[in-house]
Amino acid sequence: MTAHLTFVLIHGAWHDGSLWEPVASHLRTEGHVVHTPTVAGFGSGASTDVSHADGVTSIVRYIEQHDLTNIVLLGHSFGGTIVSKVAEAMPERIRRLPYWNAFVLEDGHSINDESPVVYRELMLATAIDGTFSLPWTLWRERFLNDADESTARAAFEKLCPTPLAMLEDKVDLKRFHTLIAEGTLRCSYLNCLDDTAMPPGEYAWSPRFPARLGLCRLVQMPGSHEVLFTRPADLAAKFVEAGRD
Amino acid sequence: MTAHLTFVLIHGAWHDGSLWEPVASHLRTEGHVVHTPTVAGFGSGASTDVSHADGVTSIVRYIEQHDLTNIVLLGHSFGGTIVSKVAEAMPERIRRLPYWNAFVLEDGHSINDESPVVYRELMLATAIDGTFSLPWTLWRERFLNDADESTARAAFEKLCPTPLAMLEDKVDLKRFHTLIAEGTLRCSYLNCLDDTAMPPGEYAWSPRFPARLGLCRLVQMPGSHEVLFTRPADLAAKFVEAGRD
Amino acid sequence: MTAHLTFVLIHGAWHDGSLWEPVASHLRTEGHVVHTPTVAGFGSGASTDVSHADGVTSIVRYIEQHDLTNIVLLGHSFGGTIVSKVAEAMPERIRRLPYWNAFVLEDGHSINDESPVVYRELMLATAIDGTFSLPWTLWRERFLNDADESTARAAFEKLCPTPLAMLEDKVDLKRFHTLIAEGTLRCSYLNCLDDTAMPPGEYAWSPRFPARLGLCRLVQMPGSHEVLFTRPADLAAKFVEAGRD
Repeated sequence: MTAHLTFVLIHGAWHDGSLWEPVASHLRTEGHVVHTPTVAGFGSGASTDVSHADGVTSIVRYIEQHDLTNIVLLGHSFGGTIVSKVAEAMPERIRRLPYWNAFVLEDGHSINDESPVVYRELMLATAIDGTFSLPWTLWRERFLNDADESTARAAFEKLCPTPLAMLEDKVDLKRFHTLIAEGTLRCSYLNCLDDTAMPPGEYAWSPRFPARLGLCRLVQMPGSHEVLFTRPADLAAKFVEAGRD
Repeated sequence: MTAHLTFVLIHGAWHDGSLWEPVASHLRTEGHVVHTPTVAGFGSGASTDVSHADGVTSIVRYIEQHDLTNIVLLGHSFGGTIVSKVAEAMPERIRRLPYWNAFVLEDGHSINDESPVVYRELMLATAIDGTFSLPWTLWRERFLNDADESTARAAFEKLCPTPLAMLEDKVDLKRFHTLIAEGTLRCSYLNCLDDTAMPPGEYAWSPRFPARLGLCRLVQMPGSHEVLFTRPADLAAKFVEAGRD
Repeated sequence: MTAHLTFVLIHGAWHDGSLWEPVASHLRTEGHVVHTPTVAGFGSGASTDVSHADGVTSIVRYIEQHDLTNIVLLGHSFGGTIVSKVAEAMPERIRRLPYWNAFVLEDGHSINDESPVVYRELMLATAIDGTFSLPWTLWRERFLNDADESTARAAFEKLCPTPLAMLEDKVDLKRFHTLIAEGTLRCSYLNCLDDTAMPPGEYAWSPRFPARLGLCRLVQMPGSHEVLFTRPADLAAKFVEAGRD
């Protein structure tokens, strides 16, 4: 029997908290408490004139306002950069820190510093009002390669623009890496084996990012970067494996 | 619901078109049309005095004679070098170009240029009349490592010699790589996770070959290089995932 | 139908032969004969004042005393260094030599020579009476990452100290590597895909170790370094795949 956990799930770029619903409902059915806040700058009608620090602050405040403790704070993709900073701010509230195909940045880097340069070129060339939207083909082939076309289309319709600052801002992570080195933060890394959002090879999620998390628990499953749309029940089970103790 | 597809499946070395039958029958049951032509130089009674270009021509002619359009043209192993050249000749007929643990050669290379040198040494040392047959032990351990011995033996009995030219001829692929760079060809790469025909490490199929296909859809499954003999239904399902849109 | 096999299973560090029981019972149910000797220096009440050579001798004598022939000699983890030396001593008794996430050392190396240096630092800093016991956190996160906490705790209670000599002694493997190069030994490598006892990347089990085994049969499955505690039936099936011919 796994104890009931309190999850705080932090979404990736182009997502908002509502897209966790299929996974969250599976977790709730198992008795877990699940919070799915939206990071500042994301979601329908949000102001996109925000910095990465604003995004971090929005989640810190959410956790404070709900007085959440002993949480499993999970970051997906871009969300990994948010949870790393939240962990700096309130390590004592965190029971376990799982990254799901998420960025674990080196100190002072942006997401774009650690991604293929063609991604950055694409986003700078096609930005609108300081935001970047994923082109359909990239989404379909690299992010949701395990879905059929209609599932991929339906998910694509739900995406929102991402403020460029979230991907361009360099993130001070000195304290985070100290906390890792000290063993204060207990991390997991969930790696989907068919995830090509970071292309296979040099830029692949694993082993690049889990290797930066010290004594990290690795959990793996088949599926794409967006397996939350294709296999939410399996994903929920892996969230529990990543976070259960 | 996946639309009904027209597959043209191009076999690997030591195979002919008839060996696709277990996979093809699963695809046909799902309503797809499946063509399994044999490349010139392969199969019982075929003249083996052929070049790689002859092999390409035989498939181009097959597609023209059957007036096939909107096809999913899939190459397995050596067959990847054939479909790359066919795609140069008739890109407008191709809906999707999946490679299944197949060679995606650099321009001007032969298969032997991109394989472990011990493979070439073995084939030159044991060639008969300009053809090369796989030794049993290599087949059993590296190509069909997921089969029991009797399945591996039964499959081995069905193999034919491969004209050395198919593995030695250098292939002009300038136009192919231009078509990839332009995004004209929509590619997939199906990678079997236990495939050791190219040994793990430097020579592994993935990420080496999918990385050359631009915005490529990666699909993976458990199994060996010859999973068509061990899990044809699963393989057929993955062909659909690779080719469905 | 797979012929009935005679398995000799050689445990890893911190284990003794009795821990094979869940796997062995599955194999016996399928009609196989299974021997699970304990390597000298391991297990409750054993003298730990032993060398790696003593460990090897204990297994050679076991095989001689039971007059075992045509065996599938399988080594797990540290046990790989034992079976390599046993294979030098009695290659004619070995039908198949599978390594399960096991060390295949270069000639003259110790296990510590081929492991992350932090592991050696940890064991030298915490050794007691020339033995090393795994800390709980390392066991739970890197060795049994696919278990729930209670399974991991129950398994941890069964572990014994490992004589440092088993990890520090340099092993002469000249003859072993000659036997591999000659093709005298028929090897398999079973790789659990979620095994992080050797961390992902440079030190990962695969492709590093199977690449040293010549024409080796690769078999893979999901699971951790200690999947014998979490999925013994699946593991038994993979032992048969690795050893069946």
